[in-house]
Amino acid sequence: MTENSDFKALSIDTLPERLGSCSSMSEHIGADFSQWEVQEVGDGNLNLVFIVEGTLGKVIVKQALPYVRLVGDSWPLPLKRSYFEYHALKREEIRDPGRVPQVFHFDETQAIIIMEFLSPHVILRYALIEGRQLPRIAKDLGHFLARTLFRGSDLSMPQRERKDDLALFADNAEICDITECLVFSEPYYDAPRNRHTSPQLDTIVAELRADRDLKVAAQCLKHLFATNSETMLHGDLHSGSVMVTDNETRVIDPEFAFYGPMAFDIGMLLANFWMSYFSQAGHETDNDREHMRQYLLEVIADTWKEFKTEFTTLWRTERTGILYQKELFEDQGDTLGSEQALDQVLHKIWIDLQGFAGVEIHRRILGLAHNADFETITDLDKRATCETKALKLGRHLAVNCNLVCSIDEINALAERLEKELVT
Amino acid sequence: MTENSDFKALSIDTLPERLGSCSSMSEHIGADFSQWEVQEVGDGNLNLVFIVEGTLGKVIVKQALPYVRLVGDSWPLPLKRSYFEYHALKREEIRDPGRVPQVFHFDETQAIIIMEFLSPHVILRYALIEGRQLPRIAKDLGHFLARTLFRGSDLSMPQRERKDDLALFADNAEICDITECLVFSEPYYDAPRNRHTSPQLDTIVAELRADRDLKVAAQCLKHLFATNSETMLHGDLHSGSVMVTDNETRVIDPEFAFYGPMAFDIGMLLANFWMSYFSQAGHETDNDREHMRQYLLEVIADTWKEFKTEFTTLWRTERTGILYQKELFEDQGDTLGSEQALDQVLHKIWIDLQGFAGVEIHRRILGLAHNADFETITDLDKRATCETKALKLGRHLAVNCNLVCSIDEINALAERLEKELVT
Repeated sequence: MTENSDFKALSIDTLPERLGSCSSMSEHIGADFSQWEVQEVGDGNLNLVFIVEGTLGKVIVKQALPYVRLVGDSWPLPLKRSYFEYHALKREEIRDPGRVPQVFHFDETQAIIIMEFLSPHVILRYALIEGRQLPRIAKDLGHFLARTLFRGSDLSMPQRERKDDLALFADNAEICDITECLVFSEPYYDAPRNRHTSPQLDTIVAELRADRDLKVAAQCLKHLFATNSETMLHGDLHSGSVMVTDNETRVIDPEFAFYGPMAFDIGMLLANFWMSYFSQAGHETDNDREHMRQYLLEVIADTWKEFKTEFTTLWRTERTGILYQKELFEDQGDTLGSEQALDQVLHKIWIDLQGFAGVEIHRRILGLAHNADFETITDLDKRATCETKALKLGRHLAVNCNLVCSIDEINALAERLEKELVT
Repeated sequence: MTENSDFKALSIDTLPERLGSCSSMSEHIGADFSQWEVQEVGDGNLNLVFIVEGTLGKVIVKQALPYVRLVGDSWPLPLKRSYFEYHALKREEIRDPGRVPQVFHFDETQAIIIMEFLSPHVILRYALIEGRQLPRIAKDLGHFLARTLFRGSDLSMPQRERKDDLALFADNAEICDITECLVFSEPYYDAPRNRHTSPQLDTIVAELRADRDLKVAAQCLKHLFATNSETMLHGDLHSGSVMVTDNETRVIDPEFAFYGPMAFDIGMLLANFWMSYFSQAGHETDNDREHMRQYLLEVIADTWKEFKTEFTTLWRTERTGILYQKELFEDQGDTLGSEQALDQVLHKIWIDLQGFAGVEIHRRILGLAHNADFETITDLDKRATCETKALKLGRHLAVNCNLVCSIDEINALAERLEKELVT
């Protein structure tokens, strides 16, 4: 099962002794490992995650497992994803300083990353489920998207450096395969790993799986995902990959990193906000989530706006790569030419992000990996009502992305779906 | 200058002794190397090419130089392109058997490929300049394009294998840099390496370089070229990379191979046919090339038609990759869904190939690397008249590619330009 026979999974019991001699551990939490307290907190689908507390403080110890944790050892997965996560964290830290956890140590053989323990941060997804409004996320995530996507592309990186990096991350193929299967294909046919709220959703699921335009759109998006390598993506930027306080936003878990289309990270993030929007009804008592719904629509609009604003700033000030060179525009006194090109680039991102958002919504309701926004709604009828609205928005986005002009239009449609003014 | 200090350029004098012990040589041309006759015939921009004749026959010995031959040692270029050419030839042979020269031997350190001597084949470009009509090229090249582009993509290859291959060819970065600079950027500003027929073209060149829509379109195409990695391209598929007899068509020189957008190879090839079309007036005496012009327009239309027909056949019979999976279409009884997706894929190729054709035309007239179709027209006024028409067609294609519905429309426009019915 393992790529390396030296690999051994950590456990609460073995961790202190195994990492006791690691200087990063002693430096950050204290050398006396007999005093360390270890807690396993991994709630994701793939890895072990430990909080280790010593006399000086706490660190996170994250270890990849040689299989998909959610499924078990019937689905092997290379430990090397830990190597890609480490490299992605390093690049993200350079491209948007302070936005990702600090990395203290990386052990490639054991697929272990030791990193900063974030406190009192909580996972954004759970904060939104609780109805918490985080004031900074639109700005912080919009900027994170703009900075990482711009600075990891041929708009900014030296050509040879980007091609080398593309080659390095192309080896993260099994992780890409997960997305290619679970996001773009399996939700649209009766694949064995799928599940959905049943029988409530059976009819709409059958409709969607018989929907030719939707299936073709999803496959065109898969084509784009698999073949467009314009920048280093986070690759899994949903609300479970963001940790927040009121004052800070941090992005974690980039093990799905690879060179892909800019619109993917943006579309996935916005999709998770729209799902949060539709899930609020499942968590509210006494219609007390209307403010939260309005907040989420604002976050969606503002994230996209902040992305565009920051991307535009970078376009005007840091466009030193091989694409849309200043020699052709600014240096010729043709600033408007570079603005025209910027509009084209942003327009393409806009079209594609809608499609990616649409399929991300579908896969979280029809596929293998669901999300807590809907899953924690215990009343299945209520859950299915929320999910149905989200599915409909997703279908609209994936199929009509060339026709929708603005994020406000999509938010208005979401509101109409929520109020059952359209079906 | 060299990556490997063991590298030594071959010469007519040193070749026999240096390759005398190579079994591929003795097997194909005879062991007594004192009898070998060596001729240097490289007329390309980058390499040494020798015909070596022994008692048993002839072979081609091609050696990369550590710089761009056209420019000199001020422009270093990795020898490793020979490695990519070798690997590309191997893959092309599998994907479209018999269409590329047989490879007998590869020496990575010396950047030497020993391969089949093609006889009585001539370079297609020179045949077209002479006014020769080759009956097979549209079908053979249309099929070559369909087979190599389809079979090197996620439509057919196993996902992991394609990602590994993508990583391998990503190292051919300096060669991609040549295309990125010379095709997509330098023609559109006053770059030091440019030249054009002067003063005749000065006015139109200034117009094109001030043409905002054209510059933006060229840069969007560069964006696509640099970031779309959907299949292994030949990468330099002009009429100088094709050798022909009346009965056979062979494709040579894939050292520009890398994973890029399907439309690039097609667009470049068609562009070279359109340039041949406009250059005929420079080679004709007594209006004797009208048949040749009609032939070239038919070749263009037929190449695209043959490509589509063969691509469609492969789509229906060999679509075993991760894209547009049969599970979603045929297996659901939804054959029309897969035909709808095919239409979308072909439509995207159609749009993009026009753009690539447009910039290829421009760079051959405005950039560093010109082609013999125009260069052999010694009357500069006549040459400039031909080039002007081609430049205008190129501009139309690059800017209006979303609006043009068929290859016949483009051919009709070419005819109107040729007859000076439009300017």
